[in-house]
Amino acid sequence: MTEGTFDGAFDDAVKTVRFLSVDGVEAANSGHPGTPMALAGIAVEIWTRHLRFVPEQPGWPNRDRFVLSCGHASMLVYSLLHLAGFELPLDELKRFRQWGSKTPGHPEVGHTVGVETTTGPLGQGVGNAVGLALASRMLAARAGGAPLFDYRVFAICSDGDLMEGVASEAASLGGHLGLDNLVMVYDDNRITIDGTTDLSFSEDVAQRFAAYGWSVSRVDGHDPAAVRQALDAAVAETGKPKLLLARTRIGIGAPTKEGTSKAHGAPLGKAEVEATKLAAGWPLEPFHVAPRAREPFQRRAETSRALFEEWKRAYEALDADRRRTVDQLLGRHVPADLLQQLIAVAAPAKEATRSISARLQQRVAELVPSFVGGAADLAESTKTHIKGGGDVARGSYAGRNLAFGIREHGMGSIVNGLALSGGFVPYGSTFLIFSDYMRPSVRLSALMERQVLFVYTHDSVFVGEDGPTHQPVEHLWALRLIPNLDVVRPADALECAAAWAHALRRKDGPTAFALSRQNLPPLARPEGFDPERIVDGAYALSGQPDAELVLIATGSEVGVAVDAARLLGEQGKTVRVVSMPCWDAFQRLPAARRAEILGTGRRVSIEAGATLGWRALVGEGGLAIGIDRFGASAPAERLAEELGLTAAKVVERVLAS
Amino acid sequence: MTEGTFDGAFDDAVKTVRFLSVDGVEAANSGHPGTPMALAGIAVEIWTRHLRFVPEQPGWPNRDRFVLSCGHASMLVYSLLHLAGFELPLDELKRFRQWGSKTPGHPEVGHTVGVETTTGPLGQGVGNAVGLALASRMLAARAGGAPLFDYRVFAICSDGDLMEGVASEAASLGGHLGLDNLVMVYDDNRITIDGTTDLSFSEDVAQRFAAYGWSVSRVDGHDPAAVRQALDAAVAETGKPKLLLARTRIGIGAPTKEGTSKAHGAPLGKAEVEATKLAAGWPLEPFHVAPRAREPFQRRAETSRALFEEWKRAYEALDADRRRTVDQLLGRHVPADLLQQLIAVAAPAKEATRSISARLQQRVAELVPSFVGGAADLAESTKTHIKGGGDVARGSYAGRNLAFGIREHGMGSIVNGLALSGGFVPYGSTFLIFSDYMRPSVRLSALMERQVLFVYTHDSVFVGEDGPTHQPVEHLWALRLIPNLDVVRPADALECAAAWAHALRRKDGPTAFALSRQNLPPLARPEGFDPERIVDGAYALSGQPDAELVLIATGSEVGVAVDAARLLGEQGKTVRVVSMPCWDAFQRLPAARRAEILGTGRRVSIEAGATLGWRALVGEGGLAIGIDRFGASAPAERLAEELGLTAAKVVERVLAS
Repeated sequence: MTEGTFDGAFDDAVKTVRFLSVDGVEAANSGHPGTPMALAGIAVEIWTRHLRFVPEQPGWPNRDRFVLSCGHASMLVYSLLHLAGFELPLDELKRFRQWGSKTPGHPEVGHTVGVETTTGPLGQGVGNAVGLALASRMLAARAGGAPLFDYRVFAICSDGDLMEGVASEAASLGGHLGLDNLVMVYDDNRITIDGTTDLSFSEDVAQRFAAYGWSVSRVDGHDPAAVRQALDAAVAETGKPKLLLARTRIGIGAPTKEGTSKAHGAPLGKAEVEATKLAAGWPLEPFHVAPRAREPFQRRAETSRALFEEWKRAYEALDADRRRTVDQLLGRHVPADLLQQLIAVAAPAKEATRSISARLQQRVAELVPSFVGGAADLAESTKTHIKGGGDVARGSYAGRNLAFGIREHGMGSIVNGLALSGGFVPYGSTFLIFSDYMRPSVRLSALMERQVLFVYTHDSVFVGEDGPTHQPVEHLWALRLIPNLDVVRPADALECAAAWAHALRRKDGPTAFALSRQNLPPLARPEGFDPERIVDGAYALSGQPDAELVLIATGSEVGVAVDAARLLGEQGKTVRVVSMPCWDAFQRLPAARRAEILGTGRRVSIEAGATLGWRALVGEGGLAIGIDRFGASAPAERLAEELGLTAAKVVERVLAS
Repeated sequence: MTEGTFDGAFDDAVKTVRFLSVDGVEAANSGHPGTPMALAGIAVEIWTRHLRFVPEQPGWPNRDRFVLSCGHASMLVYSLLHLAGFELPLDELKRFRQWGSKTPGHPEVGHTVGVETTTGPLGQGVGNAVGLALASRMLAARAGGAPLFDYRVFAICSDGDLMEGVASEAASLGGHLGLDNLVMVYDDNRITIDGTTDLSFSEDVAQRFAAYGWSVSRVDGHDPAAVRQALDAAVAETGKPKLLLARTRIGIGAPTKEGTSKAHGAPLGKAEVEATKLAAGWPLEPFHVAPRAREPFQRRAETSRALFEEWKRAYEALDADRRRTVDQLLGRHVPADLLQQLIAVAAPAKEATRSISARLQQRVAELVPSFVGGAADLAESTKTHIKGGGDVARGSYAGRNLAFGIREHGMGSIVNGLALSGGFVPYGSTFLIFSDYMRPSVRLSALMERQVLFVYTHDSVFVGEDGPTHQPVEHLWALRLIPNLDVVRPADALECAAAWAHALRRKDGPTAFALSRQNLPPLARPEGFDPERIVDGAYALSGQPDAELVLIATGSEVGVAVDAARLLGEQGKTVRVVSMPCWDAFQRLPAARRAEILGTGRRVSIEAGATLGWRALVGEGGLAIGIDRFGASAPAERLAEELGLTAAKVVERVLAS
């Protein structure tokens, strides 16, 4: 395969991207040069002929999105952003992978202007791209199509992305929904870290994506004219998402490393860099930018500016209603009195928190237009279907409800994409046990500081008969361990209302709900109780700060703690009961406030799950009551007896220790 | 679609399976009746015409394996096991989903004789089936094919299984490896919990599996003659794994619920059960077994007994060498002096634990014939390729090395299948950060009590330049939280040797290794130190039990603790250093032994990750030094400075607190 050329400026741009990438990796003495080299031509074609971007308006809501799913090729996107005029000076490219630079090893949204999503963990970008493309259609259905909302998504992915199950799940749903504003280029280089893809990857990717309902075409990734024609055709085709299989040679132009895994994950090395530059007639000085390299980007930005102006005019011409819709979507608007509004419908009763939450969610859907989402085929059980909200389906994107199918991980990556659009506060729902299936996406929500709601129900062994495969034990702490993820496990209607208010007010990170399958009793609270205290993370339900014992519980165990306190009181003990719906928020309180809430008594934690994190809280003299083993298949009442989580058993443990 | 019949006894068997399932769910008042009803005919066909089973020899190594990937249809397998004469009396079927019964909500291997794997979390069974089929071929390549090792795998899966990414990953690899001893029936009922599959699942499954390299056929699942012909053809075809798409009607025969999601996840209810039985001419009394229902199973068991006897003769006729091979595989043989043998090659030096571990693993491969495995396309980085071990490939299964591709979750489910075969101690390797991608499989290893080794490298932010998407922070504790999973984070060569010895001796559960990317110093130990103490989980490296301070560290931070201790000593402090390579094992020690190891000084933990679990260990007066935030992209040395994990920074923190 030889490489063609196109026109002078285009060629300058391609080579500049290629060698900036090479030089960045070389300067860092780590990184991935081969893929940016191979993809430079395709990427420049996308950026200078298709992508709608305005460097000085990186937040323009209707900009096209460029997703580099193979995030290890990050120098590609940094080089493009630099040439395109985004706020990324050459000095930052020289500080690739250094502390405090704008050019981390993998692209990070929010960290580098112009980066649309954080990628690196493979497959996630494919799901983000599906979510972003879906968001474009959903925004258009709500607020109007072109020129307001018709952005496209251009994604580039690798073998690794397409081997990952999360990409399979998302691609299947993308095909199902007919997202024809998504064009994905598959960098078919047949090379992975361990050698050639023949080792483990002989499937027919084209046939697989055709099976998903994608339009599939093939192109020689190093033939600019063919790439141009193929991309033009892909962009123009309607009805289906498009996959363009581009045969490329990793590290193209590197005399000894081209086409081998040696070009993948390490600098080329001084000698190879020189030889590559010499062969390309390129100056040896690092970080050289060819004179005309910026031209094609500037032309494209100019075209895009006109579209941006058109967008602004259209936005300003909107009638008040429509404009409010747009503003509420893009602002992720939440009413100031949200908590009060939710309390008004909370309706305390003996009820499962998943059912209470369903009622609150219905109200949230009325109050928060940007709130959309769905379940991984468990809406009947998680009760998260928005009644009267309509269903999103192929060609019909006005609905509030998404059916993700039994694809938790795909759901996670797609809700992240919806959030990344800037127009939606999305939720994804399944059983708490299956949070494990989507954990990499949840982590990325937290890392990207996106407002995503994970509504997990069936939150303990009290799932009951389904048994240990369906009973979360370690999951609450495993989620609390993720930085910037708030886990809320409410105990009754008021706490559910506070949980929803907390998640919707929290703009800079995801919130996971843990909701019960089983009915829970409504809780009595001190007179004049301020529900905002719930959002602090913990508060006293009863008892004095100097009580002998303080029972600290969450969710379904708060009622157990209340009963146990009564029984202990009958035995002459003074007891304080603290409900702690959000350990994460509690951790953020000042130490003095935390001490005040807990009081001075001997601490006993009660939670139907692993005790790990509670052991620190209760301290050496305390007692952590929980479940540090797998569950078992039996009715919930029997499990409570056998696992020591009835009020009577708790009292026994407390008195015996 | 109407249902055909076949012969009297066969028909009795099918209906008995169907109604035992209905009655079991009814008695439990929870469960999934519709799928067992729909699959009864196909399952009875598999069991009575193909499956090689001997009820009184459930551990016969060359038995065929039946995998019910849609584990929620558990009453199907319980009914089959009962009729087939396995140790599962009717009374156990009546105790479906009750505490202590042999019939939990989802099938659990090790709990119920005849159940081959624990299923319920969807998609996992597909991967287990691929692993089991692969193990059959790998056993044959080592110890001889028919009559010794040529078992087949019959799997049944649902829409949900095939939507899950883990199944996509495993199926792609199964096709790549040409596992023609695998026949999988897809219960294509077009119904999920939330309604019909049209909501989210419109892909062409047949085309997708053809793309993976499977042989695909279709059949009316309720036409016994067609099912017979299709299964016969699938079993006979060679060269590819086989997928049989069987169109079925969920809850077939139920007058008002057939073909609807109402038949999926709840008892039919008394009236519907009666109407269903009346329509089928079936006695209304619950748990009725038709007179001839056992006959076809008995005939099949008789045929299988002859094969079992043939197997025994062949085994007994083996020459001594071959027999030792078989015994060592099936016994998962490990030499008694393994630790000493490993210590002999440990060769302490300033070296990354991933590199030391590679050397030890190489020795393990020589000493433990059942040891096989591979990486998710990171063998170059995790250094887990067994040199000279040969690669497993399509049609060539004698190798020790598996290339899983960039499919961590598929890898997890496949290594579980290899372990379930009984002939292998498998390992799967990737970066620690990507343990999240395969967490559901790791949990199942632990729940199933299988000896699987998860070799995770690049175990902290000291991955460095790759940045926060590749830097594990919460992962060590997230893994330690999983019951019955031992996490070992060795600090040097001797600890690496102990880690491998621990994992290989531990027959009843998985072990996860956390290994460093970066070089670590070799540690000095007290004279006469017994390396078996490492396997206890923790031990003192230096300092007296009554030292003022005890620094407790793991892996790469043990060297930091040693340096910090020296610096603190220079300031007049007495310091003890405890290395704790396995917190899980330490937790299992008697309290007195734990106290003895730690000593009485103020406790300071040092680990380059979340502090959650350490906070309890160090207590209220203690100090937990770690990283409770996401990492950052920078060279490792700079990160150590910035995140406070150099010896000097540790000393500063200790003295300031």
